[in-house]
Amino acid sequence: MAEYRAPVADMRFTLKHSAGLQQLAQLPQFEDASNDMVSAILEEAGRIAGEVLSPLNASGDQQGLQQQGSEVLTAAGFRDAYQAFIEGGWGSLQFEPEHGGQGLPYVLSIAVMEMWQAANMSWGLCPLLTQGAVEALACSASDALQKAYLPKLISGEWTGTMNLTEPAAGSDLSVIRTKAEPNGDHYLISGQKIFITWGEHDMAENIVHLVLARLPDAPSGVKGISLFLVPKFLPDAAGNPGTRNDCQVVSLEHKLGIHASPTCVMSYGDNGGAIGYLVGKENQGLACMFKMMNNARLAVGLQGVAIAERAYQHAVEFSRERVQGRAAGFDEAGPIIRHGDVQRMLLTMRALTEAGRALTYDACASIDWAAQNQDPERQAQHAVRAALLTPVVKGWCTELAQEVTSLGVQVHGGMGFIEETGAAQYYRDARILPIYEGTNGIQAMDLVGRKLIFDNAAGFNALVSEITDDIRRAEAGGDKLHAEALRNAVACWQTCAEFILQHQASDPQLAGAVGQHFLMVSGYVCGGWQLLRQVVACQSDEEVSAPYKEGKLKVCNFYFQQILPRIQGHADTLQKGSEAVMAMSEDEWLSGIG
Amino acid sequence: MAEYRAPVADMRFTLKHSAGLQQLAQLPQFEDASNDMVSAILEEAGRIAGEVLSPLNASGDQQGLQQQGSEVLTAAGFRDAYQAFIEGGWGSLQFEPEHGGQGLPYVLSIAVMEMWQAANMSWGLCPLLTQGAVEALACSASDALQKAYLPKLISGEWTGTMNLTEPAAGSDLSVIRTKAEPNGDHYLISGQKIFITWGEHDMAENIVHLVLARLPDAPSGVKGISLFLVPKFLPDAAGNPGTRNDCQVVSLEHKLGIHASPTCVMSYGDNGGAIGYLVGKENQGLACMFKMMNNARLAVGLQGVAIAERAYQHAVEFSRERVQGRAAGFDEAGPIIRHGDVQRMLLTMRALTEAGRALTYDACASIDWAAQNQDPERQAQHAVRAALLTPVVKGWCTELAQEVTSLGVQVHGGMGFIEETGAAQYYRDARILPIYEGTNGIQAMDLVGRKLIFDNAAGFNALVSEITDDIRRAEAGGDKLHAEALRNAVACWQTCAEFILQHQASDPQLAGAVGQHFLMVSGYVCGGWQLLRQVVACQSDEEVSAPYKEGKLKVCNFYFQQILPRIQGHADTLQKGSEAVMAMSEDEWLSGIG
Repeated sequence: MAEYRAPVADMRFTLKHSAGLQQLAQLPQFEDASNDMVSAILEEAGRIAGEVLSPLNASGDQQGLQQQGSEVLTAAGFRDAYQAFIEGGWGSLQFEPEHGGQGLPYVLSIAVMEMWQAANMSWGLCPLLTQGAVEALACSASDALQKAYLPKLISGEWTGTMNLTEPAAGSDLSVIRTKAEPNGDHYLISGQKIFITWGEHDMAENIVHLVLARLPDAPSGVKGISLFLVPKFLPDAAGNPGTRNDCQVVSLEHKLGIHASPTCVMSYGDNGGAIGYLVGKENQGLACMFKMMNNARLAVGLQGVAIAERAYQHAVEFSRERVQGRAAGFDEAGPIIRHGDVQRMLLTMRALTEAGRALTYDACASIDWAAQNQDPERQAQHAVRAALLTPVVKGWCTELAQEVTSLGVQVHGGMGFIEETGAAQYYRDARILPIYEGTNGIQAMDLVGRKLIFDNAAGFNALVSEITDDIRRAEAGGDKLHAEALRNAVACWQTCAEFILQHQASDPQLAGAVGQHFLMVSGYVCGGWQLLRQVVACQSDEEVSAPYKEGKLKVCNFYFQQILPRIQGHADTLQKGSEAVMAMSEDEWLSGIG
Repeated sequence: MAEYRAPVADMRFTLKHSAGLQQLAQLPQFEDASNDMVSAILEEAGRIAGEVLSPLNASGDQQGLQQQGSEVLTAAGFRDAYQAFIEGGWGSLQFEPEHGGQGLPYVLSIAVMEMWQAANMSWGLCPLLTQGAVEALACSASDALQKAYLPKLISGEWTGTMNLTEPAAGSDLSVIRTKAEPNGDHYLISGQKIFITWGEHDMAENIVHLVLARLPDAPSGVKGISLFLVPKFLPDAAGNPGTRNDCQVVSLEHKLGIHASPTCVMSYGDNGGAIGYLVGKENQGLACMFKMMNNARLAVGLQGVAIAERAYQHAVEFSRERVQGRAAGFDEAGPIIRHGDVQRMLLTMRALTEAGRALTYDACASIDWAAQNQDPERQAQHAVRAALLTPVVKGWCTELAQEVTSLGVQVHGGMGFIEETGAAQYYRDARILPIYEGTNGIQAMDLVGRKLIFDNAAGFNALVSEITDDIRRAEAGGDKLHAEALRNAVACWQTCAEFILQHQASDPQLAGAVGQHFLMVSGYVCGGWQLLRQVVACQSDEEVSAPYKEGKLKVCNFYFQQILPRIQGHADTLQKGSEAVMAMSEDEWLSGIG
């Protein structure tokens, strides 16, 4: 099985032109992010991803995890790989130098993060969660907590988790029951949490759990939830892991995919209460989780791009090697990549992946700009832009990962269904992406409810005008065909948005019933915009190779012909409203059984 | 986990109105297929599917199979279930009384077959393959072979397999290398076959392999392939299993799904040659396989419908029980089925499933009519109709099974990714369907190449005029809205067909590049036609319940609003031709890596 090779050329180009990394690097705080430094980081991370993590992907899937009492043993090689990650300082790229970070742009860390996820999604979830914990603590925790925990989390010596879900509290966090009792300078936490990714493992000396829980006098609902830091080992006076805290893994889930990533049932306070420290203010736990959750959603969209890239590379390699049948235009049997249907599948995979990458990096760059811009108004604009794009990145890029990994199986024919081939693992692993960090149904509601309706389309209109500027630029550069197609697509998107804005007040079911269609139209339109912008940028970029430039043009062309037309069906359906969706009566759902 | 409940009401209705079973029952040879008899068969088969097979589905998936030397042990309960199947005579419904069959319509056996596949796809593959072997032998084998083998295969005492694929010969059978040496009244077969479903197992006393192989002097390519019957045990003088033949299982594949169905590497002739008997004429093996393969393709489409139904029932049950969040229009938290996005997912599952069922049963009824009609011209028309619909049923119904089983996972949220829930198994099992019995890429080529272009659209035009009659009927019945929508959809389909017919000569890549889009448009249009015809039939059917009638109307309405609009994107793309699909140069496929 060929190992993953980081698509460094496309990452570098996308960072430069879609994420504006060169502009970011002109800020004094990012002066280290020179072209050369960026290339060096991408090349070295790519090497580790390809040589260290990728070879552990299939073996990790096969071996899975072993629970021994309250310990979880990871698959062979995982610990060593994680040690290499710590030693390379790969967890610290984007964080504040104050706590040991390298102070590089967030979006650069996103390109590197894509590599870990593509090479080994199970393994990659551990640093992904840790970085989320750093973000939550950096945003909300007291100085003392930050000082005690951030350096260890940023270095990767300790890892982090998010503890939100309980058996009765999944998408609806308002019914969380885990308790926190004040007890001197800390709290005693008790309750059960489920679906805790990397909740227990043997790769790091300590694990820092961020736990949502309820104080005794807390108001009911989401306004009574607080956030606590609960370390597996309480730091001793020297800051090293000391006393074992009263929290442990109860069991591991048996899952469809990501077999090497421990998904834990965690129990807190079986022996009197786990010691926890309040992060942020009482009853404002969800607000503290907010930044972490938003960035985690972008990261999950990124995982979709990553696994799509992996599936694409695998399918290209196979279809070049597998000889079967005589393709049209050839005299003899040859590799299946010659067949039209195979090329259609491969290009669909490629076009969705590159569009998704560009959109994700662009959205993540807005996080950088929102944090770094000195002008509060511009800062707010970037924040609104990032907020608008977040559900699109999470929802659309994870949906496309389903399609791309399924096509990856299909390109392999019968071999695709055989586990040893590897294509099936991407397909299984990818299936979690539309589910965790808020299902795509939740993303669609967020997009339509909070980001469109509540905002009265201000952010949406700003994005449309940004896209319109890019369309003019493409037109001025001579690409009238794609410019015209994108203009029509944007008009279609606007019609959808207007339909929702006009009808939402009179139809409370609308957002739920058609939200997914709006999300998909948004994704396809934004994906087309990103690729067209890249084609325009290609024309004047002297640093890219001829095959890269030609390939990008063809990918964009394919996207506009084969992918973008999908919006028509979604838009048409959306404008039918909620009536047909909400029509069924209770006794009709299973009326076919009789 | 709730067990499968056969959708007897929808099956009965679909047999009656989509497959014209009442008209078939007016033929003297089918006089046994009375309404009462059909109901009794469906009810009893449904009971066995729900009570015997369904409970073994998850346990079979978990246990998988055990190979011990040249034996394969099936999962607990599988043997007993198969014994019950034999004792009930369930394998004999549609076969000739001459060989022990019950002489009932093929399409009735299809409804029963749907139940086995829905209840337990792994198990269901065994009778599915056996019935395929019966069809091939009944069509092509000598009287002596038929007499020796058909009664045992029809009773189910012996099971059958198809041996086509070899490591280098998958979609392209022309390069088959398995050899057959003439040796007196039989042949000696030697070679290796892969992907042999139920190639070895412990459920029956004998296994009858149908093997494609090449005679010493055979012409190269597909014109040099012959078909041989190779029994695991040679029948003794009394017709019972005697001497063990020189064929055995080498290994079992480790697959993404259908874990309880043995997928065997088979070796023939390790000890001098397996004794085989020629079926049909020398070098005409593919023609002999033809009928078997066509019906097997319909059966695989049926499996798509079956597993979609199972996933749908599971998702409805879960979403009625799982309480999470307050839905729009409600004052308090309730079951997730109240949410718009959940209803959208469930109705998408339901609408695709019922449309797929109606289309599949209708196509299968054409097989009956083609066999039973006395008028050769009408017979030929039915045969052309069945041939045209076969790739649509196989391709479209298996694609929809991917979407439906994925939505089934999604409705479950985080629980969907946990194997114990069961939704993930349907998703894994279903993934084989677009691959085996000719990948969907092959189906698309068959539809566009053989069934549209080669036929110069004669069969296509006949089907369009049949649909147009049904549109008029719907209009006359007052359903102008759906009639108009279907008329537009048919016009769009015709435009696609005309585009292909006009451009295929000048563009040899066209069929490969856009075939899949034509297949999907064909499926969606035919699915809409089927549901509209059912709605019209509902109006005058006194036998169906009010919830069934209301449910069908709402399903059709949903389909026309939420599913049918998808054809726009496919049709638009198809008419762009092959250029963007076939554009990539060799050095551009991985140009993103750099």
